[in-house]
Amino acid sequence: MTHLHVFTTGGTIDKIYFDALSEYQVGTSPLDSILREANVGIEYELTSLMKKDSLELTDADRETIFDAVSTSGSDHILITHGTDTMAETAERLQDIRGKTIILTGAMQPARLRSTDAIFNVGFAIAAARLQAPGVYIAMNGRVFPAGQVRKDRSAGRFVSTEE
Amino acid sequence: MTHLHVFTTGGTIDKIYFDALSEYQVGTSPLDSILREANVGIEYELTSLMKKDSLELTDADRETIFDAVSTSGSDHILITHGTDTMAETAERLQDIRGKTIILTGAMQPARLRSTDAIFNVGFAIAAARLQAPGVYIAMNGRVFPAGQVRKDRSAGRFVSTEE
Amino acid sequence: MTHLHVFTTGGTIDKIYFDALSEYQVGTSPLDSILREANVGIEYELTSLMKKDSLELTDADRETIFDAVSTSGSDHILITHGTDTMAETAERLQDIRGKTIILTGAMQPARLRSTDAIFNVGFAIAAARLQAPGVYIAMNGRVFPAGQVRKDRSAGRFVSTEE
Amino acid sequence: MTHLHVFTTGGTIDKIYFDALSEYQVGTSPLDSILREANVGIEYELTSLMKKDSLELTDADRETIFDAVSTSGSDHILITHGTDTMAETAERLQDIRGKTIILTGAMQPARLRSTDAIFNVGFAIAAARLQAPGVYIAMNGRVFPAGQVRKDRSAGRFVSTEE
Repeated sequence: MTHLHVFTTGGTIDKIYFDALSEYQVGTSPLDSILREANVGIEYELTSLMKKDSLELTDADRETIFDAVSTSGSDHILITHGTDTMAETAERLQDIRGKTIILTGAMQPARLRSTDAIFNVGFAIAAARLQAPGVYIAMNGRVFPAGQVRKDRSAGRFVSTEE
Repeated sequence: MTHLHVFTTGGTIDKIYFDALSEYQVGTSPLDSILREANVGIEYELTSLMKKDSLELTDADRETIFDAVSTSGSDHILITHGTDTMAETAERLQDIRGKTIILTGAMQPARLRSTDAIFNVGFAIAAARLQAPGVYIAMNGRVFPAGQVRKDRSAGRFVSTEE
Repeated sequence: MTHLHVFTTGGTIDKIYFDALSEYQVGTSPLDSILREANVGIEYELTSLMKKDSLELTDADRETIFDAVSTSGSDHILITHGTDTMAETAERLQDIRGKTIILTGAMQPARLRSTDAIFNVGFAIAAARLQAPGVYIAMNGRVFPAGQVRKDRSAGRFVSTEE
Repeated sequence: MTHLHVFTTGGTIDKIYFDALSEYQVGTSPLDSILREANVGIEYELTSLMKKDSLELTDADRETIFDAVSTSGSDHILITHGTDTMAETAERLQDIRGKTIILTGAMQPARLRSTDAIFNVGFAIAAARLQAPGVYIAMNGRVFPAGQVRKDRSAGRFVSTEE
């Protein structure tokens, strides 16, 4: 069995709703419950690095992600991340060698009745297992190499910058 | 963009519930709504071959599946299938060359509030894109080559026969 | 706060799905989780009387229900019940005086992503609180007195026999 | 069959999520889909009055609600409303005579996988049918007369001011 290391950083996929005078907030990641519900037969480790909208991620945060991934004992890495700056974080991680690093997230919070989060996590875990070493974004049923992808905000999906 | 051909054959993943004097039945596949909800950015074709519990699949049904996959214009094939005889169908398809063929399904119907179906479809689509040509079962977050996998009924998951 | 006594007897509302060689079965009632999710501010007691399709309920089972409701310390009773013989059980309970007794159930199991169960339980609890003493079926957004209601199988809903 | 008139005004129950640079917003009311999913056997009319957080409702908005309810042809009124100022709107409607007016809403958007919205709508529709004329808030499995209820923000539920 492949050991998988999952890092959560916040973003829409993790969002929860607090009623009333509060705003929509980033909460405990639903990753663990997604993996339990799928009854996955792989060993995985789950590490929460931060709980932030990706627009609020700083250089220091990306340094933290870089260090955590670099020093992980696993060569198969999944990072859940807000979509707005996912491409930027992917590029920042490109110097890490010898690991397959997959970033994914969601356009709709995992806790909604209708969401892309669960599909995306399933898709990304297969990519983390099967792709050659490198850094990739797995969104919308596609795997994009870091540096060749952007979020098309109006279409609400990720597209290749090479096509 | 990779063209993906999805064949549905029935099984738990497709099950719906009719109240009253009827039994739980196999209905229209939820595959299309799963793919729309995930907003996938790939071209796919969806073909319903049959709507059967996999225990009821006959040799003639497996012949139908074999012919449909063989003559498909796509080299990336996803087959949704009941879990009880999924391993048997996978073995039957091993003579097809030059295509990546992934079988998946679910232990819980896709229409349940809590289900492994959506994760499995996401996982399987990545496998259909990334695996080398061959026949595989993608279940429980793992990819098993045909002929090296069985359903462990008591554990409720697929396991390798090679480990 | 009104004390409410909830009795569960099985039926579609309670159904769960076991994969594979098993049939769709009646499991632990989801009533408690429905009431917690709704964060109800009333005191309630939850008693599981049986776990049966209503077509399988015997005279002895209806005697058990009758006795349990009669001897309950509460005057506000909710009974969840399969739909096929709900009208028959309602009639059997008509000799109980001084209590408001509401029967409800669902056409779709509460555990489905799309279900009438949660709406029906909310509706029935209001009826249990607000109706005058008597026995009623609360289904499809309506309250029917016992003896004046039948399930219209083809329409998939309960209708009055008096209209 | 009782004719029911449903007015939607926005609030958490109606909230939807737009990814990215947008905020959580109030969208098309899910009331119609809730009532269809419940397969209600009553005639109802659905009118969208506004799409606002209840903290943003103005005196003019409450005037609009007052006029719409007053001139409705139905004597059974359901109003979905944000929770923060629901009690205030209920008091504003107390001068309307001869109608049963029920306000309800939700602490969690109806589109979440886990929500109190569907239960509350079911509960409130029974109250709209069964209560004597007057203005009431139906939340947390209880019916509170207007003027005798407040939202307890820390407990996340409505409580009586008379107990």
